[in-house]
Amino acid sequence: VPTPEQIRAAIARYVEAFPADRDGWVACFAEDATVEDPVGTEVRKGHAEIGEFWDFAHGLADSISMTPTGPVRVAAGQAAWPFQINTVIAGTAMVMDVIDVMTFDDEARITSMRAFWDMNEMRPAAAD
Amino acid sequence: VPTPEQIRAAIARYVEAFPADRDGWVACFAEDATVEDPVGTEVRKGHAEIGEFWDFAHGLADSISMTPTGPVRVAAGQAAWPFQINTVIAGTAMVMDVIDVMTFDDEARITSMRAFWDMNEMRPAAAD
Repeated sequence: VPTPEQIRAAIARYVEAFPADRDGWVACFAEDATVEDPVGTEVRKGHAEIGEFWDFAHGLADSISMTPTGPVRVAAGQAAWPFQINTVIAGTAMVMDVIDVMTFDDEARITSMRAFWDMNEMRPAAAD
Repeated sequence: VPTPEQIRAAIARYVEAFPADRDGWVACFAEDATVEDPVGTEVRKGHAEIGEFWDFAHGLADSISMTPTGPVRVAAGQAAWPFQINTVIAGTAMVMDVIDVMTFDDEARITSMRAFWDMNEMRPAAAD
């Protein structure tokens, strides 16, 4: 089981890579990892499908990044953490609240990620 | 599947009941609900065991309450939400960050709750 420090470092790399480093972001996941984003939608599995998910998220937006909004909560080698998605779509800055729930392997690679968010809650960033 | 509004109202009742209304808090759960708090510990099942968990949490503390620290994220009738536990133990005010992940039945009663937190992160409230 990875330590809380290893998990926090893995999530920091994940946040840092997301905007522009597709390979670095995919490498945060174990090769057979699963992604359910948002919860309730089809589960993607493996680096190829996870890379396609990155392409999809970035294809929708002029830019997209994650801003943590509170501490990572670690329990028994798993984690949940709150953040905002900051994205520019058709020239308009938008923001949306998300919580990711993650499990990890012994090397602190993500083995599963489930993202809680609702597109209805996306709003112009100016409203914050 | 309950609506986001029903889920938010259920969580508001849960937060309001937790400090002092044992029966009201237990009634937020379906009769066969499960509680894993914190993640990685033994799963409690059913109103009797969930009530014993409430007794345990309150027995440790002079007082204990939950303060939401961000919006409830709802996806597909499930939810994740961030909060702080505010508790007074042996006369000292302490705080700890938690994220609860919940599923619900059609009446917006909680069918499962998993809580992400680490006792090592508990700290005097004055440090916040």
